[in-house]
Amino acid sequence: MGIKTVAVLGAGHGGCAAAADLGRRGYSVRLHAYNAARLEPLRERGGIEVRGVQQGLVPIDLVTTDLNAAVRGADVIMLVVPSIAHEPYARALAPIIDEGQPIFLNPGHTGGGLHFLHALRRAGYRRHVMSCETVTLTYITRMEGPASVNVYSYTSRLRFAALPGRHVDAMFALIKPLYPNIVQASSVLETGLGNINAVFHPPGMIMNAGWIERRHGDFLFYREGITEAVGRVVAQVDAERLAVAQALSVPAVPFIDMFHQAGLTTDAARDSRNIARACEDSEPNRTIKAPPLLDHRYIHEDVGYGLVPMAELGRLAGVATPTIDALISLAGLAVGIDYRAEGLTLERLGLAGKSPAELMRFVETC
Amino acid sequence: MGIKTVAVLGAGHGGCAAAADLGRRGYSVRLHAYNAARLEPLRERGGIEVRGVQQGLVPIDLVTTDLNAAVRGADVIMLVVPSIAHEPYARALAPIIDEGQPIFLNPGHTGGGLHFLHALRRAGYRRHVMSCETVTLTYITRMEGPASVNVYSYTSRLRFAALPGRHVDAMFALIKPLYPNIVQASSVLETGLGNINAVFHPPGMIMNAGWIERRHGDFLFYREGITEAVGRVVAQVDAERLAVAQALSVPAVPFIDMFHQAGLTTDAARDSRNIARACEDSEPNRTIKAPPLLDHRYIHEDVGYGLVPMAELGRLAGVATPTIDALISLAGLAVGIDYRAEGLTLERLGLAGKSPAELMRFVETC
Repeated sequence: MGIKTVAVLGAGHGGCAAAADLGRRGYSVRLHAYNAARLEPLRERGGIEVRGVQQGLVPIDLVTTDLNAAVRGADVIMLVVPSIAHEPYARALAPIIDEGQPIFLNPGHTGGGLHFLHALRRAGYRRHVMSCETVTLTYITRMEGPASVNVYSYTSRLRFAALPGRHVDAMFALIKPLYPNIVQASSVLETGLGNINAVFHPPGMIMNAGWIERRHGDFLFYREGITEAVGRVVAQVDAERLAVAQALSVPAVPFIDMFHQAGLTTDAARDSRNIARACEDSEPNRTIKAPPLLDHRYIHEDVGYGLVPMAELGRLAGVATPTIDALISLAGLAVGIDYRAEGLTLERLGLAGKSPAELMRFVETC
Repeated sequence: MGIKTVAVLGAGHGGCAAAADLGRRGYSVRLHAYNAARLEPLRERGGIEVRGVQQGLVPIDLVTTDLNAAVRGADVIMLVVPSIAHEPYARALAPIIDEGQPIFLNPGHTGGGLHFLHALRRAGYRRHVMSCETVTLTYITRMEGPASVNVYSYTSRLRFAALPGRHVDAMFALIKPLYPNIVQASSVLETGLGNINAVFHPPGMIMNAGWIERRHGDFLFYREGITEAVGRVVAQVDAERLAVAQALSVPAVPFIDMFHQAGLTTDAARDSRNIARACEDSEPNRTIKAPPLLDHRYIHEDVGYGLVPMAELGRLAGVATPTIDALISLAGLAVGIDYRAEGLTLERLGLAGKSPAELMRFVETC
């Protein structure tokens, strides 16, 4: 009784990659987006043109703006959307999902599942939830046209957790056939606190803010933007993240080791423990330019749905996070958004007022 | 009984400018530096070659590494040294200055006089002190060789205060003939909280840290480095500075108006209230490049002896300074210095444990 039918919610880079990849591999895929104009080119083309890990034109069984039609009876509902869309999707799904219908946040970043669950319940959903998540997308991918996507690879060794955590074996068995590269994590706190994008994207953006704005990102983000000084700030953000994890007894691995495990840098750079060097020596990121604007997911997502929930978990655990706090403040001023109010607060995570012990019980049993 | 003899302590850009300018104008100048190698070229040349507001070779009456010889009987002792040198100079001067011998910190940045006084007293000096200070140097100047200096201009409308403040009329009358551009301020808190370099240099450095390190400062600091996002952070630093001043009933003027009053930007830019635009439109700063390294006074001085004492005065006044705090944290990580410990704390300012009312009395009467 494995998965046959997948509802993919979201038709951006990740959603189209998932629809094409899973469709090519024989799953019945329904692809949903709210924006009809986004889906129109797929209808005209009769599917999604894919290259990379799959090849060719992949027909999609259902391409729709009707959420109910997309999710009804699906064996898994996979949200492949920006974190900011989790809450509206939860409100829309609350009246229409079946009890225990599996939900997969791909990705959940830091606290995505907790946020989604809290929003479902606030929308009146009272039955059991079975959700799961990875910290980043299961694909390295980029759309190359309105109906074509290049899926460079599957993300390797991607940590996977369930919410509530007690269902992790069942959820892992369910999703593993879709994504054999996932590895089981102890809880959504482990996946969430393993969000390395949140550790190094915000310092890279804030400490190059003038360069990005003035030159429209015309420099190499990893090779040139993560200098020694930026690397020292990244290292301190990482130390605070590890301290929060330790206070909550959540397994966590230093940034530089995760970066290396993900195949993003050399053995020598890892052994140097120098983050600037690890980024400079990142062959897969060698040609990636900086974003052309600060108004970008490296800030919106990695601060609001990365650093903010890390700082908030620190607050819950009684661990100070001054460097993370500094970046949240400056990022907010830089782009004119109060991330401390708009990001994933304990309130939005459904964790307000909980003690560390209550938090640990909650992620296990909800 | 005006000033005839000036002891200039420090033989860098500012010290050489002061020695040459005042020497040319007929004052008897003694020039002191601890580093004999710094003075050797001046001895060989028989003085300082000056151009700009003065011209020609200016002989200096005494060029010495002997502090006692430099200051004995001088009508004013002018410290033209980095803030970090105030404390060692105070220790060295404590046993040798006369009671009430005028001391002029040129410049004092934020809290220089308080720091100097506290260090004098810790070194055992128990008599009356007569010190005064400006927030920045009285010259716009740059050395062009080991014995030659270009004095572009005198700094205009420079706020001047005395410590203790009750002597301000006497001190102002004493120094005004040397520097007619000074204007009297209510206290060293007004000069110190009017430190606009501390308001915009640190955001400009931190938010361009990668650019500076990677390109060795090869961009225009004011015209290119202070973008809209950087300007928004500068504006928030400025708002916090003004809030601290207001809580202490210290007169303070917004950054953009001070920048305009100093002749650094256009009427239109001032009226726009847009700091990025004011910096872009700064004609005098048009060609100034960024520093080649983060290891520079734009951080060391403007954070440690600018933002730190502002944050500390905020703490004393009960005013939160989260943006200033954020910049102090990131600057410290960027250059590997704990400015919260090394900079001008309330302890180093001699203000530990004082209430706002006690602070106001202290700057008046010490």
